[in-house]
Amino acid sequence: MKAIMIEQQENGNRLQLQNHPAPEPAAGELLIKVHAAAVNRTDIVTREGRSGYAVNPILGVEIAGVVEQADGESDFAPGDRVMGLVNGGGYAEYAVMPADRAMKIPAAYSFEQAAAVPEVFLTAYQTLYWLGRLQPNESVLIHAGASGVGTAAIQLAKKLSGAQVIVTAGSQDKLDFCRELGADVGIDYKKQSFDEEVLAATNGRGVDLILDFVGADYWDKNLASVAKEGRWVLIGILGGAQVERVNLFALMSKCVQLTATLLTPRSDEYKARLTSDFVRDVMPYMETGEIKPIIDTVFPLAEAMEAQRHMEDNRNIGKIVLKVD
Amino acid sequence: MKAIMIEQQENGNRLQLQNHPAPEPAAGELLIKVHAAAVNRTDIVTREGRSGYAVNPILGVEIAGVVEQADGESDFAPGDRVMGLVNGGGYAEYAVMPADRAMKIPAAYSFEQAAAVPEVFLTAYQTLYWLGRLQPNESVLIHAGASGVGTAAIQLAKKLSGAQVIVTAGSQDKLDFCRELGADVGIDYKKQSFDEEVLAATNGRGVDLILDFVGADYWDKNLASVAKEGRWVLIGILGGAQVERVNLFALMSKCVQLTATLLTPRSDEYKARLTSDFVRDVMPYMETGEIKPIIDTVFPLAEAMEAQRHMEDNRNIGKIVLKVD
Repeated sequence: MKAIMIEQQENGNRLQLQNHPAPEPAAGELLIKVHAAAVNRTDIVTREGRSGYAVNPILGVEIAGVVEQADGESDFAPGDRVMGLVNGGGYAEYAVMPADRAMKIPAAYSFEQAAAVPEVFLTAYQTLYWLGRLQPNESVLIHAGASGVGTAAIQLAKKLSGAQVIVTAGSQDKLDFCRELGADVGIDYKKQSFDEEVLAATNGRGVDLILDFVGADYWDKNLASVAKEGRWVLIGILGGAQVERVNLFALMSKCVQLTATLLTPRSDEYKARLTSDFVRDVMPYMETGEIKPIIDTVFPLAEAMEAQRHMEDNRNIGKIVLKVD
Repeated sequence: MKAIMIEQQENGNRLQLQNHPAPEPAAGELLIKVHAAAVNRTDIVTREGRSGYAVNPILGVEIAGVVEQADGESDFAPGDRVMGLVNGGGYAEYAVMPADRAMKIPAAYSFEQAAAVPEVFLTAYQTLYWLGRLQPNESVLIHAGASGVGTAAIQLAKKLSGAQVIVTAGSQDKLDFCRELGADVGIDYKKQSFDEEVLAATNGRGVDLILDFVGADYWDKNLASVAKEGRWVLIGILGGAQVERVNLFALMSKCVQLTATLLTPRSDEYKARLTSDFVRDVMPYMETGEIKPIIDTVFPLAEAMEAQRHMEDNRNIGKIVLKVD
């Protein structure tokens, strides 16, 4: 089958379409004919060899496609349209997926739309609810509001919790789009001091929850933005990993809970439970169209390198998808 | 009535026994004749004027005594022996306490023993269970194992959860005492590298939960000691508040949850709920004597300054109590 593999080069690794044997499903796994995959920052980290899920030589952590071969004990059968997380191997014509992690694709969705669901919606659900324990009518600050996870989190926080949603983004276009998705307050981080805007929007209280994709660069302003007894979920370090000085007493005085997380390295069992809760709580809204995946661009599989570059340039609003057939 | 007040001095504030009007209970409060109070680090912070609960000019956040006057709607009546947290005002002959925060003193307890219960046991319960979500048979690292909160936490973690309890302390006497209370592993932090010992005691996995009273000085070693997906509860900064160079990616890779907390500044409603859960889960063990407060020294009320110095010198094993009658 055709698959995107990493080619090691001195001036930065590149991606190449190569021939590779199709994977063999183990017990409890589905073999899936992939119709679309999607690009994630973790794929870029893996491409660069900085960490990632390097056990699988093929990139890609999420797919949408058709079941080709199913374990007799699973809920799925050949011909079913499914989407979900894979343990690498997504940028390819065939992939295997633990059956307890597969989700039925809503009838109205194309494969491209379906491929845009798993990673960002599961991450948004995990961080808002499992880790961030968002309660009805609380306030949440979502950085990178126009990103894949951002566009998913805005919708979940509004539809599931009626939250006050405050977002940051780097352009008026992105902020306008976030507003259309339901965001109440948009902050241009290039022109405004987001902590001041957050305090103004919350009567000086700060937000109950922060979804932080930025890390070091925003540390002090996030601390200023979080409410007393607030939760702060760290899921990205686009602004650097190294904070030069952390004042622990400031965290204690506010009784802040900081949860650092990544989704890809979590266990199979964790991903299966997360998928199950997500299907129960969110899929009904996807079936009715009240919550929807946001696609920025669709690239052919062979142009995976260009697709990743597009993400690295932060030009996208929503997901970048690879069309596989 | 007699009460301990703060006397401001240039070379460090001092404590003085003075006459002060007895407090008047508001609706929902009990007036209590105090028989014993206990000393906490938060009192020292307040004495030094660095922060604390300065709305009440009298020191002290926990007492044991006899109800003198009760709100008609409370569960308590004059003559009842009670213990619990107060919003300052504990180092005195009379104090007021929200009735929903009072706990009946076990029949076998002296007032000195009772005064040694509220702050440390509620803090240990809050950090182990509400914040740390300790599960049966998990492992927990308790720093300052011989401190008031440490001696409470060792007992709770063993009796309520059958946890593997690993403690640090600065002398063999303290470690021996922790072992008597149930600790499985004792580490002399002056002679041993505690992270290496923790990893050795957990087959390289690290602990599921850390109760951290130390802060900055232990940051890197705590990060090395916590298991993947572990919880780390920060409740003290005996080793400094300022951490230089925090690597956020290291926190993310381990999916660590860091919860910073203080008990004293929490709301009345929070303390009432915490007291209620504690009474349900822990008081039965206190009634049978399976869990018990640990008292280091009892000072007369007039010697409150000496009592605080004793704590500042880190000489105590367990609680320092003030006898008030």
